[in-house]
Parts: sequence; C-alpha cells; structure tokens
Amino acid sequence: MKKLINAVPDVVKEQLEGMAVAHPDLLKVHFDENFVYRADAPVAGKVAIISGGGSGHEPMHGGFVGMGMLDAACPGEVFTSPTPVQMYEAAKMVNSGAGVLFIVKNYTGDVLNFETAAEMALADGIPVQNILIDDDVAVKDSLYTAGRRGVGTTVLAEKIVGAAAEAGYNLEQCADLCRKVNSYGRTMGMALTSCTVPAAGKPTFELGEDEMEIGIGIHGEPGQKRMALTTADEITELMAKEIITDPAYTRIVRELSDSGEWVEKSLVDEPFQRGDRVIAFVNSMGGTPVSELYAVYRKLAEVCADYGIEIVRNLIGPYITSLEMAGMSITLLKADDEILKFWDAPVKTPGLRWGI
Amino acid sequence: MKKLINAVPDVVKEQLEGMAVAHPDLLKVHFDENFVYRADAPVAGKVAIISGGGSGHEPMHGGFVGMGMLDAACPGEVFTSPTPVQMYEAAKMVNSGAGVLFIVKNYTGDVLNFETAAEMALADGIPVQNILIDDDVAVKDSLYTAGRRGVGTTVLAEKIVGAAAEAGYNLEQCADLCRKVNSYGRTMGMALTSCTVPAAGKPTFELGEDEMEIGIGIHGEPGQKRMALTTADEITELMAKEIITDPAYTRIVRELSDSGEWVEKSLVDEPFQRGDRVIAFVNSMGGTPVSELYAVYRKLAEVCADYGIEIVRNLIGPYITSLEMAGMSITLLKADDEILKFWDAPVKTPGLRWGI
Repeated sequence: MKKLINAVPDVVKEQLEGMAVAHPDLLKVHFDENFVYRADAPVAGKVAIISGGGSGHEPMHGGFVGMGMLDAACPGEVFTSPTPVQMYEAAKMVNSGAGVLFIVKNYTGDVLNFETAAEMALADGIPVQNILIDDDVAVKDSLYTAGRRGVGTTVLAEKIVGAAAEAGYNLEQCADLCRKVNSYGRTMGMALTSCTVPAAGKPTFELGEDEMEIGIGIHGEPGQKRMALTTADEITELMAKEIITDPAYTRIVRELSDSGEWVEKSLVDEPFQRGDRVIAFVNSMGGTPVSELYAVYRKLAEVCADYGIEIVRNLIGPYITSLEMAGMSITLLKADDEILKFWDAPVKTPGLRWGI
Repeated sequence: MKKLINAVPDVVKEQLEGMAVAHPDLLKVHFDENFVYRADAPVAGKVAIISGGGSGHEPMHGGFVGMGMLDAACPGEVFTSPTPVQMYEAAKMVNSGAGVLFIVKNYTGDVLNFETAAEMALADGIPVQNILIDDDVAVKDSLYTAGRRGVGTTVLAEKIVGAAAEAGYNLEQCADLCRKVNSYGRTMGMALTSCTVPAAGKPTFELGEDEMEIGIGIHGEPGQKRMALTTADEITELMAKEIITDPAYTRIVRELSDSGEWVEKSLVDEPFQRGDRVIAFVNSMGGTPVSELYAVYRKLAEVCADYGIEIVRNLIGPYITSLEMAGMSITLLKADDEILKFWDAPVKTPGLRWGI
C-alpha cells in the first residue's frame, strides 16, 4: 500500500487536522463529534445544508464546506457511513433556526443513519428534511445499495442547493430544488485501476493490465461489466450514450411530512430530450490526471451535440473521488434557469471556489 | 499503459481540443501554431505573460491561461520542449505593444528555445524579457538540466506576475517581480510511483512496493535518493527541513539588456529566516489524491512553526503534475506585501480561479 499516510487508524483524523490548519477562514473541525462546519456557522436566517458519508471521496464532502455550499459535513471512516450522532451534533451546531437539509447519497448505511439523525433533530425542534441523491445509471442495485447509487450529482446538488440557501430559500424550497437536481442528474463511472482502503491494505479488486471496469461505484464496488481497455473516445461514447438514453426511472424515497412523519413518495426521473441544456461534469476518480479528463470532455461534447443536447456549463477535475483509483465519471445535469442561476452564484470552499 | 487516451500521437492535440471546447470564454487554441491564448488577447496596454514547456504537467501551463495569469502557453509534446516558432507566434498574437515576459522553467531545451524565440520577437520589435525559474533544492544538476530544475514555484510565479501585469506593471517591473519570486521560492518533490509517457508505453522507472524516490523531478527523472517508504510525517519533515535550511544559492542566468544583448547575471537566493512569512504549496504529482495532501500539509505547518516560519497563504492540490505519477511536492515561497497583494488578486483560468 503506497500512500502518504501515518498510522492507518489516524488517516481520517489527520486529514481533518490538515484541513483545519489550512482553511481556518473557511471552516472548523469539531474533533470530539467529528464533523466539519463553516467558520461563521450558524448563519443567521439561512437554511443549513449538511451532507456526509464515508471518507475517501475528497474533496467531497468536507472540502465543500464554506460560503455558498455546505454548512457542515460528516465524515465516516474510509468508505464507512458516519453515525447519526455526528449528523445530529452537526445539525445542532449549524442550525440558525431556519432548519437543516440533509443531502444523502443513496447507500443503505447513510440513508438509515441520516433518518435517525433527522428524528433526533426533530425531537429537538430543529426543522429538517432528508433528500436522496441516487443518480448512477450503471446499476440497479449494488453491494451497498438498494436502487441507484448516489454519485456525481451530489457535488452539483451541494453547489446549487447551497447557493439557494445562501440566497434565502426556505427549507421547503431547498428540498424542492434538491429533489429536482437529483431528478435531472445522471452519472456513470469507470475504473482503470482499483483503490486501496487503508484498513484493508490491499486493492479492493484486481484488474488486468488490459482491462477496465465500466459502471464502477465510488467505493470500488463492482460495476456493470469488465471489458478490454479501449480508447477514450469509445469509453466516453459508451458512457455518454447510456446516460443520455437512460429511460424514465422511478424510485420510492422516504421523506418527512409537515407533521414529522416518514412518508413514502414515488419520484420519477424523466429522460433527457433533444434541446435540453446541461451542466457536464467530468470527474477524476482520484488517480486520473486532468489532462486525460479533457480528452474525455472533447468526445463528450461531440456525443451531446449528436443528441441535440447543449452543454452550457462544465466542471472538470477530481471532485468526488475513490481514493487513488484511476478512472473517471461523467455526470449530465439538465439545467433550467433556476439551476443555472445558483450554479453561477459565488462559492468559497477549499474544493470549489469562484466569484469571491 | 492504462490511460484515457486515443492514438498516442494525438494525446496533446486532443487535450487541447478538449480545453478549447470546454473553456471558450477563457481561452482559444491556435492549432496551426500550437499554443493556447487568452480569448480576449491582446489586452490593451498590458504586458503579456507567456510560459510553456513539455506537456504532461497539467493544469500547468495551458490551464493557467486567462484573466490574471497567463496570456499564452506553449505546450510541447509530453515532456518535450515546445519550439521557438510556437513561442514566437504566441508572442506576436498576445503582444499589445507593452511587451512580453517569457517565464522559463530551467530545462536545457526550454531555455534555449525561449532564447531563440526572444531573439525572433526582438527582431520584430516586440519588447521581451526571459526570466528563469530554478527552484528545486533536491539536485544540483539533473538529466535535463544544468543547475536546479524549475518546478512548483513556476505556478506561483505565473499567478503573482500575471496579477501584476493585470494591474499595470510594465515589462521591467514584471521581470523584477518574477526574478524575486524565483529567488524567494524553493521546492522539493517525491514519488511513490513512476509515470508512463504515452510514446514510451512503459513506466519511466521502477519502484519497489516498499520504496519511494525523494527529490524526484516532474519528468520522472531520478531524484536525490531512493528510500524505504515511511510515514507521511517523516517524508514531510525530511523535505520541509531540506527546503527551509537550504543555504544561499547562486546561479548564472542570461537575460536581455536594454540594448537587446544577452548578458550574464549572477543571482543569489538568500536562505529562509525565522520570522519569514510564506505561501505554502502542497502539490500532487497527479496520482495522489487531495486527502493525502492534507496529511502532508498538517505536518508541514508544524515543521514551519518549529522554524519560526509563518504560513500566511496556501495552495493544496494537483497544479504541476507529472502525468499520473503518485507523489507530491512542497514549495515554500517567502511572501512580502507585494507578493501577497498579487497572490490575493482575482484570477480566472481553468486551473486556478478566485475573486471573479
């Protein structure tokens, strides 16, 4: 295992220490309860946006704490869900009275723990809502998931909903917008190499020198198919077509009603259509350099044009990673005026910054 | 060779195509003469800042073209110097009349070619100056270099001098500032793995599973020593101490006199001192994820404090890479008020953006 780490049990803590020392103007780390929060939290009158999940996907989520994005992030151990207590303590710290939106990636542990945290917050009188991100078109179910996994759209949702909260959206409006972003976003990933979880000390899976894994998850969990490695153009075309032609998708989610009860809702994602404008996000899994992402983006723009889909914004780089895995993911997010307005709004975090 | 590429001869061209499609608001690519330039060049009255070198270090240099940083970047093939004609054509394209500063990393090919380009520009009546970056404390000479290599300080110099040019510095003032930044900056790198040059198709060097290379260059060229892999803390301490305690360093550079003749100058870098304020730059070589860089930054802050050196700004991420090499470099740049003012100024490029 070749990593720049110290003792394996300290990996996450020491990364957080580094962040706290590097960015005191943006964020603080609560080391007892283990969460990252905005240096100026709670922000008066603002809905607090909180996310979290296993570590190993940096800069997501801790690196997205700051003005215009997250109020707090709860990191678990590498690829392990954080606990309900972490989430609840983070909610108490950053709630200004306007309530808390939990943005939850669809992994069984995260979903359950964020539900428990929401119940704890509600019991304290903190208004709260949980919105699921499940945007991975590659697999129906997976090792850690019932239904689609939450992947690249999470980054875009945190940016867009974070900006809306900054602009004064109330909790219901933030939840509506987050639901829409999830419904408009679709992602697919691929891997050239495995990653190595520090506690395991060996690669999560093995790939031959001439193989790649299509539809990989962000935890090194198996994807759709293992194939012979081919060109960037063929890989990009395969993935982009699968994203663009993905049919309507229905899932059942649990959200909180006005009276604080869990209710099941059936939510449908409509397929992309000719004439759609999109934000295109080409993401490195960690070990793939940005130079290769531009080769992918070049072909992605061609495929989108072929389908009459116009890329109006883009994000290219390592934003939701899987440790040092080599590979990439493509996310397309249908973008209406509301989404674009909040995408373009200023953001100041360690991992994403513009306009300020 | 596992990379997201198409045919090997097209690697650089297709990356440039991707950049051109992704960032038309920021930059254009001149495909005949093979350079990247600001979409709004030439900027009236402004000194043009140009850099370049072999590809494979992205986002440097092409990703730093835009407001507040570079006016043009000349990419060679991977790890291969661009040609004098590229540099000269770029200079003609972006020169507003206020002249051109070439920021040149100290590699034999780059130095010679930028000198020839400067002579071609001068012959056309374009005011020009060449300033060398040679900040790598690891080796005195190397495979591609007489004297110290130009590494991490290049990124900081491009940001700082780019902002000064934007603020109205004339050519001589830009050259003075760039010389100062080079004199104030020191860097050291290390590798956990090799990189693979596409045209070679196999790793540049071999490292055992329990080995690392200290003092590596950004082309995979050998470093100072090969050692058993140890902890992030020990690696960081070793490198930081070597940077901080680096003694006075003298080199001979060739710069243009007012009358357009090459003159040799002896320039001395003074060592760091207690009480110095610095910009700390922890850089990924490409394959190391940002999470590990924070573990390094945490220790770096401790070591600096031990030496009475205050980190007042930082930059943490992959900015000057060596393809997909795993590893990192540390740069410390002594920062006075002039340097900090231009560091903090707005920048809008694909690779570095804030304040706008």
